[in-house]
Amino acid sequence: MAMPPPNPSGLPFDDIRDLIARMPGPDEAAVAAVRARDAELTKPAGSLGRLEQIVEWVAAWSGNSTPRVDRPLVAIFATAHGVTKQGVSAFPDSVNRQMLENFAAGGAAINQLCVANDIGLKVFDLAIDVPTPDITAEDAMDEQACAATIAFGMEAIVGADLLCLGEMGIGNTTIAAAIHYGLYGGEATDWVGPGTGVDVEGIKRKADAVSRAVTRAGGPGGDPLEILRKVGGREIAAIAGAILAARLQRVPVLLDGYVVTAAAAVLHALDPTALDHCLAAHRSAEPAHGRVLERIGKRPLLDLGMRLGEASGAALACGIVRNALAVHQGMATFEQAAVSKKS
Amino acid sequence: MAMPPPNPSGLPFDDIRDLIARMPGPDEAAVAAVRARDAELTKPAGSLGRLEQIVEWVAAWSGNSTPRVDRPLVAIFATAHGVTKQGVSAFPDSVNRQMLENFAAGGAAINQLCVANDIGLKVFDLAIDVPTPDITAEDAMDEQACAATIAFGMEAIVGADLLCLGEMGIGNTTIAAAIHYGLYGGEATDWVGPGTGVDVEGIKRKADAVSRAVTRAGGPGGDPLEILRKVGGREIAAIAGAILAARLQRVPVLLDGYVVTAAAAVLHALDPTALDHCLAAHRSAEPAHGRVLERIGKRPLLDLGMRLGEASGAALACGIVRNALAVHQGMATFEQAAVSKKS
Repeated sequence: MAMPPPNPSGLPFDDIRDLIARMPGPDEAAVAAVRARDAELTKPAGSLGRLEQIVEWVAAWSGNSTPRVDRPLVAIFATAHGVTKQGVSAFPDSVNRQMLENFAAGGAAINQLCVANDIGLKVFDLAIDVPTPDITAEDAMDEQACAATIAFGMEAIVGADLLCLGEMGIGNTTIAAAIHYGLYGGEATDWVGPGTGVDVEGIKRKADAVSRAVTRAGGPGGDPLEILRKVGGREIAAIAGAILAARLQRVPVLLDGYVVTAAAAVLHALDPTALDHCLAAHRSAEPAHGRVLERIGKRPLLDLGMRLGEASGAALACGIVRNALAVHQGMATFEQAAVSKKS
Repeated sequence: MAMPPPNPSGLPFDDIRDLIARMPGPDEAAVAAVRARDAELTKPAGSLGRLEQIVEWVAAWSGNSTPRVDRPLVAIFATAHGVTKQGVSAFPDSVNRQMLENFAAGGAAINQLCVANDIGLKVFDLAIDVPTPDITAEDAMDEQACAATIAFGMEAIVGADLLCLGEMGIGNTTIAAAIHYGLYGGEATDWVGPGTGVDVEGIKRKADAVSRAVTRAGGPGGDPLEILRKVGGREIAAIAGAILAARLQRVPVLLDGYVVTAAAAVLHALDPTALDHCLAAHRSAEPAHGRVLERIGKRPLLDLGMRLGEASGAALACGIVRNALAVHQGMATFEQAAVSKKS
């Protein structure tokens, strides 16, 4: 998807705001068709719970009254973060490139989940060898770079009919925590957790870095895109773009864990309807994730204690989505099966 | 699996008690092997949460240190219940045979889930045209018939390496509620819910039937097998047998919803370790299911608001189990991928 023509102000973020203003709503006719068929299927009404809601959701946001998922895609956005200088991660920066190579070689968790669930996988390297500046000292991006990275994310999803969003980047739970603190306020410690496994001292260093970064950026509150630009990361900007492009292209989205949710939260702060085409796949073990999901009004599909990222929760949820669609498509109606209805 | 030789007492239930006393424990060596490999995989320790626990569980109860699931089986036990005379179900008894035919024709929800997840499906007809007596008036089974039905369930699972247990039978949430009230006491209303969708008056009729049946059978408490015999159903007896046979044959079990859990609860009341090889697949929307899961010490894998039965929750959970195993089997180690470990 091409970016729109330059806006009158010439400010790159105004292009993003224009696109948000143009987001389509749900396809109510497709939802009605799904509900009508569901009422005829050989099961008690409502007895498939969230599976039924999932089918309606795919119909609403794909615009297909016989909803299908044939080309699901896991898109992983990966980058590096200067804030790791503050001792916020259990792993060294060198893991960033090593993990990109692991993805390419098929050795990571997400590779196995994509094969097991027949999901395409694309990994986007956002200058992984060039960390963004340490956000405790300076802004992560200027407006031009941030908007260009959002635009990069918008280009990434072409061809998918269900988008599973994920990320990889040492230090990025600190970046996500800074965005959440910037958006929602409270205390920095409200948004910080062990990430890949730092100890109590490490969590203190993370909270301190988050507090200093957000204070430097003007404190909590303020414009969501400015928060993203000042204390965010390239993968989070790109994911925000991917979420937005999916909406414009009628592609339902499965949000993964804590870091992906930071991108979603930026969009939600700009427009509370911006995530209506998104399902939260999984509640991360990262303690603040549940709080963010409440803020953006999402009840996660799965709660399996995972905290890996890489779209691992979204890939598992994709399996559930496909099961829901298979049931809706394949079941017999009461009439076809000559089964008696509720008396 | 053949039943053991006659026991000295000659009482059929004593054979069941003998088998429970012979249940094997977990394969600790297989679990240790899985943990050792997990620690080397290219992910932060513990970051796959319950997926890691699932792999250990399959190893423990299959006795395989490189655990696999190649032949999962959904086994549905179906029968009819005289208690429907009490107006406890939203559907007529005629649905029992119609749904058996729907299973055979591939039109039910579970057929789609088995195809989508590559799971075998067997449906066992436990005299579906001959309802058990109305439990408000007389015992469902005599000891010989109950033990024979448990033995039937034990024979049913041959060849599977993961067993997904399900049921179908109009009226059987009332039967399950009677077993739970018989085992755990409290009030009959604690164990009764809308089932396939009865209204408030229907729920009152269910609670009344449960109360009268359990009072007739001697009140709450007493021997679990006697409760099963007096207020249970053939599908629940057969499922209890299948759970027990799976343990003896080293086959892990996924428990489905409210009715399957009644069979599990009988075994748990006989021996609290009898369900160690079982995972609760899904928390049913039937309100009492969560209470029963707490009593048997199981935290469900999924919570999707379903209340269909047919092993639908277990089939979905089977997909998660296979994903967990695929990740454990396929991931690269830190050494293979040359990824740096936690610093």
